[in-house]
Amino acid sequence: MPPRQIIIDTDPGQDDAVAILLALASPDEIEVLGITCVAGNVPLDLTARNARIVCELANRTDIGVFAGCDRPLGRDLVTAEHVHGKTGLDGPDLPDPQMPLQEAHAVDFIIDTLRSAPEKSVTLCPLGPLTNIATAFEKAPDIVGRVQEIVLMGGGYFEGGNITPAAEFNIYVDPQAADIVFRSGVPLVVMPLDVTHKALVTKPRNDAFRALNSKVGVAVAQMTDFFERFDKEKYGSEGAPLHDPCVTAYLLNPDLFTGRHINVEIETRSDLTLGMTVADWWRVTDRAPNALFMGDIDADGFFDLLTERLGRL
Amino acid sequence: MPPRQIIIDTDPGQDDAVAILLALASPDEIEVLGITCVAGNVPLDLTARNARIVCELANRTDIGVFAGCDRPLGRDLVTAEHVHGKTGLDGPDLPDPQMPLQEAHAVDFIIDTLRSAPEKSVTLCPLGPLTNIATAFEKAPDIVGRVQEIVLMGGGYFEGGNITPAAEFNIYVDPQAADIVFRSGVPLVVMPLDVTHKALVTKPRNDAFRALNSKVGVAVAQMTDFFERFDKEKYGSEGAPLHDPCVTAYLLNPDLFTGRHINVEIETRSDLTLGMTVADWWRVTDRAPNALFMGDIDADGFFDLLTERLGRL
Amino acid sequence: MPPRQIIIDTDPGQDDAVAILLALASPDEIEVLGITCVAGNVPLDLTARNARIVCELANRTDIGVFAGCDRPLGRDLVTAEHVHGKTGLDGPDLPDPQMPLQEAHAVDFIIDTLRSAPEKSVTLCPLGPLTNIATAFEKAPDIVGRVQEIVLMGGGYFEGGNITPAAEFNIYVDPQAADIVFRSGVPLVVMPLDVTHKALVTKPRNDAFRALNSKVGVAVAQMTDFFERFDKEKYGSEGAPLHDPCVTAYLLNPDLFTGRHINVEIETRSDLTLGMTVADWWRVTDRAPNALFMGDIDADGFFDLLTERLGRL
Amino acid sequence: MPPRQIIIDTDPGQDDAVAILLALASPDEIEVLGITCVAGNVPLDLTARNARIVCELANRTDIGVFAGCDRPLGRDLVTAEHVHGKTGLDGPDLPDPQMPLQEAHAVDFIIDTLRSAPEKSVTLCPLGPLTNIATAFEKAPDIVGRVQEIVLMGGGYFEGGNITPAAEFNIYVDPQAADIVFRSGVPLVVMPLDVTHKALVTKPRNDAFRALNSKVGVAVAQMTDFFERFDKEKYGSEGAPLHDPCVTAYLLNPDLFTGRHINVEIETRSDLTLGMTVADWWRVTDRAPNALFMGDIDADGFFDLLTERLGRL
Repeated sequence: MPPRQIIIDTDPGQDDAVAILLALASPDEIEVLGITCVAGNVPLDLTARNARIVCELANRTDIGVFAGCDRPLGRDLVTAEHVHGKTGLDGPDLPDPQMPLQEAHAVDFIIDTLRSAPEKSVTLCPLGPLTNIATAFEKAPDIVGRVQEIVLMGGGYFEGGNITPAAEFNIYVDPQAADIVFRSGVPLVVMPLDVTHKALVTKPRNDAFRALNSKVGVAVAQMTDFFERFDKEKYGSEGAPLHDPCVTAYLLNPDLFTGRHINVEIETRSDLTLGMTVADWWRVTDRAPNALFMGDIDADGFFDLLTERLGRL
Repeated sequence: MPPRQIIIDTDPGQDDAVAILLALASPDEIEVLGITCVAGNVPLDLTARNARIVCELANRTDIGVFAGCDRPLGRDLVTAEHVHGKTGLDGPDLPDPQMPLQEAHAVDFIIDTLRSAPEKSVTLCPLGPLTNIATAFEKAPDIVGRVQEIVLMGGGYFEGGNITPAAEFNIYVDPQAADIVFRSGVPLVVMPLDVTHKALVTKPRNDAFRALNSKVGVAVAQMTDFFERFDKEKYGSEGAPLHDPCVTAYLLNPDLFTGRHINVEIETRSDLTLGMTVADWWRVTDRAPNALFMGDIDADGFFDLLTERLGRL
Repeated sequence: MPPRQIIIDTDPGQDDAVAILLALASPDEIEVLGITCVAGNVPLDLTARNARIVCELANRTDIGVFAGCDRPLGRDLVTAEHVHGKTGLDGPDLPDPQMPLQEAHAVDFIIDTLRSAPEKSVTLCPLGPLTNIATAFEKAPDIVGRVQEIVLMGGGYFEGGNITPAAEFNIYVDPQAADIVFRSGVPLVVMPLDVTHKALVTKPRNDAFRALNSKVGVAVAQMTDFFERFDKEKYGSEGAPLHDPCVTAYLLNPDLFTGRHINVEIETRSDLTLGMTVADWWRVTDRAPNALFMGDIDADGFFDLLTERLGRL
Repeated sequence: MPPRQIIIDTDPGQDDAVAILLALASPDEIEVLGITCVAGNVPLDLTARNARIVCELANRTDIGVFAGCDRPLGRDLVTAEHVHGKTGLDGPDLPDPQMPLQEAHAVDFIIDTLRSAPEKSVTLCPLGPLTNIATAFEKAPDIVGRVQEIVLMGGGYFEGGNITPAAEFNIYVDPQAADIVFRSGVPLVVMPLDVTHKALVTKPRNDAFRALNSKVGVAVAQMTDFFERFDKEKYGSEGAPLHDPCVTAYLLNPDLFTGRHINVEIETRSDLTLGMTVADWWRVTDRAPNALFMGDIDADGFFDLLTERLGRL
């Protein structure tokens, strides 16, 4: 079977970086057609910089990196430097990227790629706010039906939110874009906080990264070290949640995850609950299912896969 | 120490019935000043009937039972016969009540009681929609500062909702009333689904009720048998959650519960999330705490207490 | 024909005062069963005081004046001293009232009156926020079907709002209560700003009040003098709008007004448009009509009637 | 003075057609850099067709016509065939266009034009939903500060709405896009229904178009004949309102219009009032002015100008 073709849409972010590395470490299963950047964890100029740093860390300067939307639809940008540090990639000491940013706009790259590839052959993997994806869908509605699947990190149900009591960061930053994507009709796989808060980088797991004794392994260990600091303080948890790599891991081994095919709608009306993913987990409504909303993860299997793959880089 | 004086505001409901019985079984600690009924699980005429059936079951025909509001503030009434059965008290075969309903309106009984009792000596225990309480607060704002505490069953955070994906039944039925109560400034203790879904009547616990071999014990066993049917099917859980008795148990032994003193606001604006208790469990906002929102229960301790007390009736 | 029986629900306010005086000056057509006071233009203690001042000005100390709700449903009170002055009745120098306030709560007076009078024989005339009426409807839903008609001052369509760009003061102060009343099914006659901004006390009309040369005439001239100040500055209009007396005038001579029987809904969800009366004047929706929403007034006829009647006091 | 450079963003529509003709008839004052089409009155394929029909009617096949977004941001498209007829240009019998549609997307044409022209030298003239403009602003925020001015037709305050009681069609179709534009900081001139409902094509004015005795004059007379039918029935008015040409007329002679520089916000939260332009005409809020919101028009001067210019084609 040829590798699955994907576009990673991302706002790195340490955990985005690990998600990208996991994809680049798995060329037999995943072909990364390009990386499109969006404002989110940090502003666009930094996410576009960080994506290239990560490609260079993986010696994959052949990957096209595209800058996209620098703020959400009709709202001011909210960022998360309190989690990710000033650069978004705090932790390791990585050099400035040498590879250039592509000239095309991320939105146009998404549109052109979907138009030129065979129908339903390209999967979108959003790891940040959904602004690029929604803008592409608005500008070129003909591509919506051409997407194979969207596998994204965002939202939460049983875990509630992390940026507000009701909302997870990626969805909260651009609820309007999320609403467009969740209503688009494209098959969705959602990795919410319910899953990612179970993918914790404990001390032994961090040690395993470091023990790879490679540039990548050490960098990932340092990134998750940095990332951990925040969550330990906030949740008292035993390690940093590795949100975004769950998306890549699903492409490699969907059996690591369990969930339900249910209706998920995005709250766009109320300030109090803005950006909530209202997931009908118990099927108490008659709204049609539109997403495979994950609820659990085989965390050990996930970290085994991740560590093994990172070791290949 | 004299018993704590309470008004039970309720829409029985099998679990309301058990909550009332637990209070009536504990005269050393709790003095029930009156029972005020509200529309909720079933319409008002049935809740006012069921409250008296329960008093008679406990041989406490001296308790005043008052009918209150028969629908929520500015909304149509939603009921829950699919859970509680047609009468609201399906399960045991109990006789029609002989004791009369009091003539005064529940709202006036609440107002008059709070005005005539010493300041901060009366606790309100709402087990249903908060319509009566909110209406009393609106009509007589002077009583708000006289309430000792409100200990209520309602809402949910980590458990989500049960009537919609976002909302628990009691709050959903009258979100406007809930908003009034949660903003009132009265000290609040909240028993959400997060707690009550851990207070499950398993087979052994049901057997223990029945083994009391009393009229009350058997009736409670039959009520929870009926109640269980629904939750088993919906949640696949191992028994019926005993929501409302958590309120009474808290009055008897608060150490059975753990929670956080946090801000909780009620969603009143959006249809999608209407009636959600937006609980700032992780303290990600700077909104002032207004409620002790419970998160866990010593379920064995709770059922031991409950069974022992029901055995006294 | 016997006089029409009404309860005036009010928050005086100079224009409320004139509306009351017009009713008291017209005993052949109108029997005032009582005056219920609500917080609005000024706090409740002042509106309850002002209503009695007005009764005494008209030598009608036999009228029962009742204090009602001192704040809107679930919101903080907004008042309008910038329009009405510190007392709410600034302008004339009137003595403190000697007549007592009734002991019963306004809400109970409304309920008891409607229950004891023949069905559909009593008309409610709200001149302020609808808190008392809505609270009575909530507490005693059986009275809703017993009301003959509600003739109220509130809202606006072509005139927009006066307290916000979208909302008129009376509705804005308690949108939840307004929503309850507008959905109640009781026949409604609405005097919006569209009408009342055409009922302007110009210099000649003010002179006509003063020329009555009576205590009442002079007081009304002084009240409208005071009231005018604000509107002149704000709208550049040629005189103060006499909002509330339009309600009384309608009872005396409905032919002074023209309007449309249309659907009117209250905005309760959005902060930006909160309290707007969304009037389907052009019938662009298929929502069922629930109100006779007035759009025009014979202003000369109105002032002729008003001056002639005030002259009788 | 060189002619003012504009992009007309439009969804023709008979009145859009007249607005375009007025611009094309005035080359000394206005240079049309391109016409960008959007879905609105009719679907995108028809608006892109109609825009070219109009260019050919004016013998201006040199104008670039670009197709843009075919539906609003995150909502289903609402159209207005009940007003404009099945084609959007019902009335005259005009031939299918021969001139081609440009290949570039309207959004990219707007972005590229603004980037390549001197800063603040290009004015945008939206005559339909603001989807294209908002999408361009989202995709390329750097162009926002380069726009000279936006002169648009949309909204209403004293006139209320036309598609719902609260909302005018153009804003209602894409409230999210309107919100983005009204918050953008670009200087705005707004022609609301308050103005355009005073620009009525009465019989004599229609006769004057026809008396031009030219292809254009007769076509415009036939278009406004068709258009009139609807408004006469709905509003009982004496002729069809010529909404969109007010935008072009403002560029030619701003003195035809009077208005206020005020704050205007777009309602995006509530279904009941969705798409309302909440205009602070009376300056009752302290929100900063963001638009010159017009309130009146010299209708005779407007029609004199329009007829004279159409005579030049």
